[in-house]
Amino acid sequence: MPEPTAAAADPADHPHPPALWLISELLGGQVDEIEQALNLFHPSTLADAMEGLPRSERQLVWDNTPKVLKGELLLEVHRDVRAQLIETTPDVDLVTALDDLQPDELADLEPDLPPAIMTQLLHGMDAEDRQAFALVRSHEPDTAGGLMDVDAIVVRSDMNVAAVLRYLRRLRLRRGSLPEHCDSLMVVDRDRKLLGSLSMADLTSVDTSTGIADLMTQPIRAVAVDTPAPEVARLFEDRDLISAPVVDTDGRLIGRITIDDVVDVIRAEADRALLRQAGLHEEVDLFAPVVTSIQRRAGWLGVHLLAAFLAAGVIWVFEASIEEVVALAVLMPVIASMAGVSGNQTLTLVTRGIALAQLSTPNTNRLLLLECRVALWNGLIWAVVVALAAGLWFADPALGVVFGTALAISMLGGAIAGTLVPVIMTRMNIDPAIAGGVVLTGITDVIGFGSFLGLAAWLLI
Amino acid sequence: MPEPTAAAADPADHPHPPALWLISELLGGQVDEIEQALNLFHPSTLADAMEGLPRSERQLVWDNTPKVLKGELLLEVHRDVRAQLIETTPDVDLVTALDDLQPDELADLEPDLPPAIMTQLLHGMDAEDRQAFALVRSHEPDTAGGLMDVDAIVVRSDMNVAAVLRYLRRLRLRRGSLPEHCDSLMVVDRDRKLLGSLSMADLTSVDTSTGIADLMTQPIRAVAVDTPAPEVARLFEDRDLISAPVVDTDGRLIGRITIDDVVDVIRAEADRALLRQAGLHEEVDLFAPVVTSIQRRAGWLGVHLLAAFLAAGVIWVFEASIEEVVALAVLMPVIASMAGVSGNQTLTLVTRGIALAQLSTPNTNRLLLLECRVALWNGLIWAVVVALAAGLWFADPALGVVFGTALAISMLGGAIAGTLVPVIMTRMNIDPAIAGGVVLTGITDVIGFGSFLGLAAWLLI
Repeated sequence: MPEPTAAAADPADHPHPPALWLISELLGGQVDEIEQALNLFHPSTLADAMEGLPRSERQLVWDNTPKVLKGELLLEVHRDVRAQLIETTPDVDLVTALDDLQPDELADLEPDLPPAIMTQLLHGMDAEDRQAFALVRSHEPDTAGGLMDVDAIVVRSDMNVAAVLRYLRRLRLRRGSLPEHCDSLMVVDRDRKLLGSLSMADLTSVDTSTGIADLMTQPIRAVAVDTPAPEVARLFEDRDLISAPVVDTDGRLIGRITIDDVVDVIRAEADRALLRQAGLHEEVDLFAPVVTSIQRRAGWLGVHLLAAFLAAGVIWVFEASIEEVVALAVLMPVIASMAGVSGNQTLTLVTRGIALAQLSTPNTNRLLLLECRVALWNGLIWAVVVALAAGLWFADPALGVVFGTALAISMLGGAIAGTLVPVIMTRMNIDPAIAGGVVLTGITDVIGFGSFLGLAAWLLI
Repeated sequence: MPEPTAAAADPADHPHPPALWLISELLGGQVDEIEQALNLFHPSTLADAMEGLPRSERQLVWDNTPKVLKGELLLEVHRDVRAQLIETTPDVDLVTALDDLQPDELADLEPDLPPAIMTQLLHGMDAEDRQAFALVRSHEPDTAGGLMDVDAIVVRSDMNVAAVLRYLRRLRLRRGSLPEHCDSLMVVDRDRKLLGSLSMADLTSVDTSTGIADLMTQPIRAVAVDTPAPEVARLFEDRDLISAPVVDTDGRLIGRITIDDVVDVIRAEADRALLRQAGLHEEVDLFAPVVTSIQRRAGWLGVHLLAAFLAAGVIWVFEASIEEVVALAVLMPVIASMAGVSGNQTLTLVTRGIALAQLSTPNTNRLLLLECRVALWNGLIWAVVVALAAGLWFADPALGVVFGTALAISMLGGAIAGTLVPVIMTRMNIDPAIAGGVVLTGITDVIGFGSFLGLAAWLLI
């Protein structure tokens, strides 16, 4: 194996995970050099690469991963992949791998770890860590409480800058270092009620005799411990926050959320949004076992099959017309497809508007009207095109006119369905981002086949 | 109008933009109170609400927005909405509104502003601001250079902590405040070459006689000025960064990227990913003028129309078979739909794998095999179901067998297409996230209609 150069090992030159490199170089036989090579990469880079490996190669890399890296890697990979890695690791190795993790990191892993391992790890903790673990664990993982760290540095408002600086020096001596991403300290009263925050920039740039009460910023934006994670993310985005204090129902400070955890929430949400549109909201391991994939996808296919049979039922009604004019069978999928594509554009815009809370009752009506006008004009434009095309193709002008008219009607129907389906689903507490597509396709298929075949039966036969 | 209570005005209680409230309360007649009410909200909250308003209401709110808010609002809204607002504002008001923006914020707005306004604003700047503006503007907006601030605090490695603290105090006196999100300072040499970084937490917690060279962290992860924005975002995510120095090609420090700008990149990217799947990658104004929407969507519909006519052509080949067995026309959309849905699941997973750089040549073949096995099994399961359903429906067991067989073949075809389409498109430098869906549907329609009608023509007629 060629010695990896400093440049190649620098992830700035490998902005994407070097999956190809891992496979071709590391698994080319020299298994004993894997350990040395793995140490050159950041755990998150390795996690991405691991996820891109087929399961057997992934296992080979994992078995040769240094124990000190394994804990970090388990934290970074998706749950599917994590389950594989945990399952195939002997208990004693797992305990060693997880021993160095922080209590809040362990709490994140807990749902995927065997209970016996958890018990062993808890026994190994000191009292402070065990308390921190219990605190984080007592909150839902997808809330502010689940996201927070419990290591906020807290000062009292009756101190002055010199006293705070002395305190920070003592703290550093005792703990070895201060918490990461420490751009501000929290100011509390005697009851640990949050009073304000103190930016490090201010702390370092004023006279040391300045009182904290005068220097701190307040009122401060505190996050309630049970705030859902996506809402926390939106707050951080909107306010350009770096960290935010977390308070309990009595306003007492219990932790701190930093933006690096929020960024993970944002990225995971976006990833989920893309996957669930294809009915894949649980599936993230590209190389999941065949049986798992079959089970996960079967339901989604079943729902679509029902919708497709509904459309088939509509066609069946007009069997006699098709027998008479076979061109109807040739052209009908075109109308259903166009109504679906056009309706899906409206659906996407409206679903997004709902997610951003931009749609309320008065402007939904306005939007419906607007989308109908867009669809009607687009429908008319394409109606002329397809009417000419079909009329020439089958040398039947009347067929062309019926085809074009049905297209315009169907695209209008698609716009109406595309607006109303997500609005109604949201009122029924169904997520339109998951189920909206299949319902819309069902409706546009029925409208498309029904309008074309119905018009044809009425006017042509 | 009821006086907005403190609770209602607190955005923590309105995590989503109060669009409904704005419309029903503010536009209910008392236009003179709009200004007062608008001041209660954060610009980003207002921007979301503005985007959710129909154009005439949006204009009414805008005309009554205090000038001091207008600059911030223009920064926050999407380009579509921004264009409307800029177009309808008199030049003199625009200049007043934009006067208080930072040079880097102005650079963001520049592409949307009339040149005359830009000239006026530049004339009003002092030399330092004009230089900062020119620097930011000299870089592409979607690169590290376009994202960076130029206000990094820079110290020299031969200083000690006491000297740095003195410097920060002087800086604060001169500037009024230190830059936002200041969790670390940059350490450079005499040529402004980046040597390392100095965390504020370290600075406040060590003895003041400590030398900066001993305290600073190095080597530091610097971002090259021409790094694409999505790559910068990934670096921040992977490394849990809060801020990163930006260097030119000679390694000289020229600016600093902070995570709040990166969060905007991540969210905008995710938003774009969802919209472009529906061919809406440019469209963000829910209430865009009808003509604009028609133009933007016409192209996408045209491409789908071509694909649909291709499928119609396949059906046309088997016109004679359909004339003989009309049930074929009834059932054929079911097969095309199932092949499309199943292929789309594969397409989504593979496109995502490519975006995360998890797919390289050796594992693409493995993945293709795996997806084929999943599709084949799912195809066989549903083949039995649909064969029974169709056999009973049309009292024709042979038709049922042909239907089921065609379904299994088509779903296998969908899996192959779903794997190969994005891989091939990526090699051809076409973004599979935009064009993958329509190409896949074209292919699965052809396979679905072709296999079913072809098998029927061969075996049934």
